[in-house]
Amino acid sequence: MATPIQENLVKSNQEYAAGFKDGDLALPPSKKYAVVTCMDARIDPASAFGISLGDAHVIRNAGGSAHEALRSLVISEQLLGTTEILLIKHSGCGMLTFQNQDAHGVVAKNLGAQAEAELEGLDFLPFPDLDQGVKDDVTFLKGSKAIPDSVAISGWVYEVETGKVRHVA
Amino acid sequence: MATPIQENLVKSNQEYAAGFKDGDLALPPSKKYAVVTCMDARIDPASAFGISLGDAHVIRNAGGSAHEALRSLVISEQLLGTTEILLIKHSGCGMLTFQNQDAHGVVAKNLGAQAEAELEGLDFLPFPDLDQGVKDDVTFLKGSKAIPDSVAISGWVYEVETGKVRHVA
Repeated sequence: MATPIQENLVKSNQEYAAGFKDGDLALPPSKKYAVVTCMDARIDPASAFGISLGDAHVIRNAGGSAHEALRSLVISEQLLGTTEILLIKHSGCGMLTFQNQDAHGVVAKNLGAQAEAELEGLDFLPFPDLDQGVKDDVTFLKGSKAIPDSVAISGWVYEVETGKVRHVA
Repeated sequence: MATPIQENLVKSNQEYAAGFKDGDLALPPSKKYAVVTCMDARIDPASAFGISLGDAHVIRNAGGSAHEALRSLVISEQLLGTTEILLIKHSGCGMLTFQNQDAHGVVAKNLGAQAEAELEGLDFLPFPDLDQGVKDDVTFLKGSKAIPDSVAISGWVYEVETGKVRHVA
């Protein structure tokens, strides 16, 4: 039996598909860029960052980690022709609120030893300072040999309280 | 000097922020679920999957890999209270078109030995069959001890040609 969340997906998608007119867009992003941002529920990249359908790759993970995004970014650039990266972290990020040992402790307490063993050594990639986190990720991407120097890389903060972005790096 | 992509971000965001009224949303997703999907430019999860601002975590990477998303999913569930996962891959995915050795070959050819050394052993996570890829990722998540059995997990395909989703697993 479908859950309410699954029912919402099916019903909302039926309405979307009924008016869908973009079935001929090409695989490579037309504006040749990639955005890396957080999975946070309060971010709608298309609306907040001006991304139309077909424009750009959008990579999202907990914290908007450039390290975890590197695989996707290499595919984006080397196989699909993008030439620019916008890295956008955000205010109020959950990743600012804990350390690795806290997350591992929660897993062990809630899920038990087998779960904690499966995640042993996992870096949950928290970061203690927002602006510094953006700068560090931009520095990492600029230093990576897997991202050519010709790729433009910039770092931003999105404020979930105001809907505004500001340039950081 | 700002690139045209950066100028678009700033200008589009100014318009978005001018009408922004959702500054008081809570950090945990209000509908308590997470979506894992691909970075593909032809997917707008909010519109196509019926996700309103604040509803759900949205995790996106090349191919919509559940393996790479596991870190984010554990944070989503254990620290931010979500209890359901929708895994949605899509037709026409670039990850269906190459093998690991191809991607490593392109990196070595375009970026040189230092770049390839940095990515040595990296699994780019391509998959040869779409529906099987969805089933495999659902099986992986259901088998992971880090995702409790109480979490509802379903797998879907989004058709970029029609805008429609269909249930797979």
